[in-house]
Amino acid sequence: MPNPYQRFRVVLVEPQYEINVGAVARAMKNFGFSELFLVNPKCDHLGIEAIKHSKHASEILENASVCSSLAQATKGCDLVVGTTGVLYRHWHKTFRFPISIKQLKSKIKQSKKRKIALLFGNEGTGLSEEHISSCDLLATIPSNPAYPVLNLSHAAAIVLYELSDLPLQSFLPAQKGSKEQLLGAFFSLVDRYARQLRNPNKTKVAFRRLVGKSMLAEKECATLLGVLRRALRELESK
Amino acid sequence: MPNPYQRFRVVLVEPQYEINVGAVARAMKNFGFSELFLVNPKCDHLGIEAIKHSKHASEILENASVCSSLAQATKGCDLVVGTTGVLYRHWHKTFRFPISIKQLKSKIKQSKKRKIALLFGNEGTGLSEEHISSCDLLATIPSNPAYPVLNLSHAAAIVLYELSDLPLQSFLPAQKGSKEQLLGAFFSLVDRYARQLRNPNKTKVAFRRLVGKSMLAEKECATLLGVLRRALRELESK
Repeated sequence: MPNPYQRFRVVLVEPQYEINVGAVARAMKNFGFSELFLVNPKCDHLGIEAIKHSKHASEILENASVCSSLAQATKGCDLVVGTTGVLYRHWHKTFRFPISIKQLKSKIKQSKKRKIALLFGNEGTGLSEEHISSCDLLATIPSNPAYPVLNLSHAAAIVLYELSDLPLQSFLPAQKGSKEQLLGAFFSLVDRYARQLRNPNKTKVAFRRLVGKSMLAEKECATLLGVLRRALRELESK
Repeated sequence: MPNPYQRFRVVLVEPQYEINVGAVARAMKNFGFSELFLVNPKCDHLGIEAIKHSKHASEILENASVCSSLAQATKGCDLVVGTTGVLYRHWHKTFRFPISIKQLKSKIKQSKKRKIALLFGNEGTGLSEEHISSCDLLATIPSNPAYPVLNLSHAAAIVLYELSDLPLQSFLPAQKGSKEQLLGAFFSLVDRYARQLRNPNKTKVAFRRLVGKSMLAEKECATLLGVLRRALRELESK
């Protein structure tokens, strides 16, 4: 897959648990991201637990850059986005009026391709006031006010999911011709019982809508048609 | 918080690891869901690891229902939605043409409030062919074809995030009057240097846009105004 996500860098600031670092790497690969930076990690990003939880994304851990400061980790980035689950509290020294990650996505989409750093703070305390202050932008995942703080790797997975915009892997939808055959077969059944039905045409339209709304795949269409044809054949031979 | 999510039931089918069951409970609370069913769990949903990883959502684990069959766990649900990361493979006995979770959301929004079960399969194998067959609908998280299989609790977190639609916790945006004061202060600065600027009006409009696009909070507006006013006062006293 060509990588449209090279403009993004995931930066974990002082992560504490290998399991989370590994799980973030996995989520990154799940959504097509690859560039991972770690600022003063408190755990070994190549430790057994990290590798284990990264599953098939261990290369992201192996290629990760370890930095000693946030400035170093965001060097070359044109936009530094901090994430926070904790909104305004009176004792915060810094303003925290984050935008939602959906808003972030739309803002990023508008702008030309510049390098963007996505910052995730430590599991226990999140990003520090100092780090928050140095971000160009703050973003948050709208969540339950009664319990807004997500697990670190969950937060990363959701942000990456929201920004990734990967297409649904496509399947072959039923072609017009195949759908018409399926409709035709069902309509023949309806015609057979037309006298017993209150409104045969309404029934036909209901089936057309059923097929239309279902986004039927070609293969599903074919197998359904097989049954209706067999039923019609047997009925007609009686 | 009133719970608009009572129409949803999260069903974990044969989950294997306590850590995932706990993490799913946490994600449920993060997004306002509360009803958890477990079908033949292979681990103790009230074990130490489960409780630990549920963090502040242990009550969801305590209130979880344990069932011995999927039929039992989905009883009373009008729509049973299976989730899968694995799309069509030739050896599958069952069709797998899932819709995306965004499509699922829009379908659910259209329909009246009926009870909906969201199924998540086992960590190693996902939902079995038999379980997949019994679902009304299949949904998937669009992901990297090179590595589409997400961690169980990540998948659940993303699906719940997508379906939750919680509002961003609101802050007080800057009022018209406050913004006008801020603009006015900056405009005075512009006027001061008007002769040296190529197009003072363009500069004023640029600042108006800056403020307009930034969705400034009332408090941010006030503190910025404070600086500009001080600067103006000092400049005028010279």
